[in-house]
Amino acid sequence: MTTEIGLSPLRIDSERLNQRISQLAQIGALEGGGVCRLALSDEDRAGRDLVCQWMADLGLEVSIDRIGNVVGMRKGKLDTLPVMTGSHIDTVATGGPYDGNLGVLAGLEVIECLNDAGMETVHPLAVAFFTNEEGARFAPDMMGSGVHQGSMNLDTMLEVKGIDGKVVGKELARIGYAGTAPTGSVRARNFIELHIEQGPVLERRGLQIGAVTGVQGISWTEYTIDGVSNHAGTTPMEFRHDPGYVAAQISIEARRLAAEIGHGQVATVGQIKLHPNLINVIPRQAIVTVDLRNMKEELLEAAEDKMASFIQAISIEEGVNVSTRRLARFQPVHFDPAMTELVQHYADLFDYSCQQMPSGAGHDAQMFAPNCPATMIFVPSQGGISHNIREYTAPEQLARGGNILLQTMIHCATQE
Amino acid sequence: MTTEIGLSPLRIDSERLNQRISQLAQIGALEGGGVCRLALSDEDRAGRDLVCQWMADLGLEVSIDRIGNVVGMRKGKLDTLPVMTGSHIDTVATGGPYDGNLGVLAGLEVIECLNDAGMETVHPLAVAFFTNEEGARFAPDMMGSGVHQGSMNLDTMLEVKGIDGKVVGKELARIGYAGTAPTGSVRARNFIELHIEQGPVLERRGLQIGAVTGVQGISWTEYTIDGVSNHAGTTPMEFRHDPGYVAAQISIEARRLAAEIGHGQVATVGQIKLHPNLINVIPRQAIVTVDLRNMKEELLEAAEDKMASFIQAISIEEGVNVSTRRLARFQPVHFDPAMTELVQHYADLFDYSCQQMPSGAGHDAQMFAPNCPATMIFVPSQGGISHNIREYTAPEQLARGGNILLQTMIHCATQE
Repeated sequence: MTTEIGLSPLRIDSERLNQRISQLAQIGALEGGGVCRLALSDEDRAGRDLVCQWMADLGLEVSIDRIGNVVGMRKGKLDTLPVMTGSHIDTVATGGPYDGNLGVLAGLEVIECLNDAGMETVHPLAVAFFTNEEGARFAPDMMGSGVHQGSMNLDTMLEVKGIDGKVVGKELARIGYAGTAPTGSVRARNFIELHIEQGPVLERRGLQIGAVTGVQGISWTEYTIDGVSNHAGTTPMEFRHDPGYVAAQISIEARRLAAEIGHGQVATVGQIKLHPNLINVIPRQAIVTVDLRNMKEELLEAAEDKMASFIQAISIEEGVNVSTRRLARFQPVHFDPAMTELVQHYADLFDYSCQQMPSGAGHDAQMFAPNCPATMIFVPSQGGISHNIREYTAPEQLARGGNILLQTMIHCATQE
Repeated sequence: MTTEIGLSPLRIDSERLNQRISQLAQIGALEGGGVCRLALSDEDRAGRDLVCQWMADLGLEVSIDRIGNVVGMRKGKLDTLPVMTGSHIDTVATGGPYDGNLGVLAGLEVIECLNDAGMETVHPLAVAFFTNEEGARFAPDMMGSGVHQGSMNLDTMLEVKGIDGKVVGKELARIGYAGTAPTGSVRARNFIELHIEQGPVLERRGLQIGAVTGVQGISWTEYTIDGVSNHAGTTPMEFRHDPGYVAAQISIEARRLAAEIGHGQVATVGQIKLHPNLINVIPRQAIVTVDLRNMKEELLEAAEDKMASFIQAISIEEGVNVSTRRLARFQPVHFDPAMTELVQHYADLFDYSCQQMPSGAGHDAQMFAPNCPATMIFVPSQGGISHNIREYTAPEQLARGGNILLQTMIHCATQE
């Protein structure tokens, strides 16, 4: 399908994009680099004000909905749904300057390119930033896009209490972003989000662009293992019921089953807590978490089944009791293959090295996937690092992603 | 050697022994059971005062040395070194009523038996309690017996600062137990200590008495494993350098090498700390401890070597850095085989089921082992539990241990 689609002569202004990124990063800037703009904080308000000002300067018609999502619209020839891009400008407590900001500011850069060229599109264009994507202050994450696309309930989310005890609805009002537009009033014709990869794959493989196929399904489980605490010296090995040993076995099994299942399966034991956690005491309890992810629902289920069977067997063998608590479960999200192909196609035309890949992290785009053709464009994260003040992507890498976003949006917005 | 040794007709008074145990347990009694008499606390003082009163009531000549060890002497026909028994009366913060108290109060019961029978021995008898055996407030443990037997330095120990910032020497003076007798001024001809097993072996094997062959050597090592923290979703398995996975492998290896080495080898990973210890983050660091114990020095060294080799191999494989810190290392202590045989012999004469076994925990008796024939008598711990308010040994079990102590002391004190 894509062989007839050519390149528009327009190119983004890399310097202008990086200047906006630097300017926004000054709001909530941390000593030693990095940014802290937690959702609905004073810093978030200041960041929102700046981006809204930029939207207005670019002639966009700005609307704010009841969960505080901000959408800037540029009219097309037809009064249809807009081709939308965007992301978020909230950060984690020790975030970097790129993350969601890149997707929002690259969207503004696309608008400015078209404005400069005096180019009119068939369909409207929209640049949005969504409230509380990070979930660092208020759970769940992807709150604004979730409400926008109808998978989360507005009233429930307005009542969410944050880690500091403050409530979403009141904080929205306090910072002046409790908008009046009904949530979801601006639907999208397509949604395309540019983001840093937040992982090491592109860099390790020497790739410049990732054409994102979807978001991995996530399974989080916490196991509480109760054994028998005893003296490390006086208790022969054959009399032990050691929950720490079972926790260790679970960590080994996570690695083993990921290799066995393959196909991008990842499995992580990130948390182990032993009680009493003393050098000469066999623990009485271990709490261990398992994070499983896969793009294929059936493989994710297979990973869950393998872990469950393993834990049942090992707990009987060791004579411990295991109680299981599911902490989170999301099915994989599949982006529109034609949209992902379009990203790949433009990368090929630009001669950027590119592969199709899933996202290991959650993004606003996944909330759009059930409702419209959506995809994402990844650019490399240096050292695979993100959610960290050392987060970095070189300007030329950002420009490549910005140009693919520009081409993709032009294409989508000019198709009758 | 022991076939000609017969039973003395004397028997301890089980009720009197248990009454003393109950009375001492009221000092520092915890709500819901158990005892807290940390070394050199007000409760320790009150406990010491009570035991000293009992010693005086029994006609013992009480001396207190400069580290606060208390020895009660009963004269013999000859002015030789005494046949000594004893233990400690300090407890951990949530201790039980037996532990060291049993050994001290059974010693007093032996004296009272001999007094009641008007029996004179060839050699003097001594009952001692040693300062700060537990090490719960002041490190190291076995401080009083260590100084008494010359393996620890008096002046250094008097300067030791506790977990509450208080200093040993000042606390001794404060509670009135900074004695004037030179430490080690009362040497022992033999040393025999009655103690609860603090482990499950006797109970599990249906045994009534343990004739203790020695104390396991102890090797404590802390490993700090530095890897690369990363996102659990975006980091493929092949790019991981996961210190949590290496910590888990160490726990598995501990279990494996204990089985391979056998001969009573125990291996425990009691402490694992992951940083940052979050469900969706591959840790950047793991700190893990390994506790290895064996009665045979060469096997303990083999266990240490196996663990070191394993950790070197796994750290290269996973691409992490491991730094090693030795926390403690004690060689095995071997009690006098003839003394252990004597305990076994009396158990046989009484028709008590008995096996020779090592101690997995440290005891005051081990400080005497290099300097005189020493051994210990173990009685079962219900459920293998100790250092716990649920610590329990039935009165008839205590009486069996007490009678063996009585017979052994009579034998040693009547041999010219």
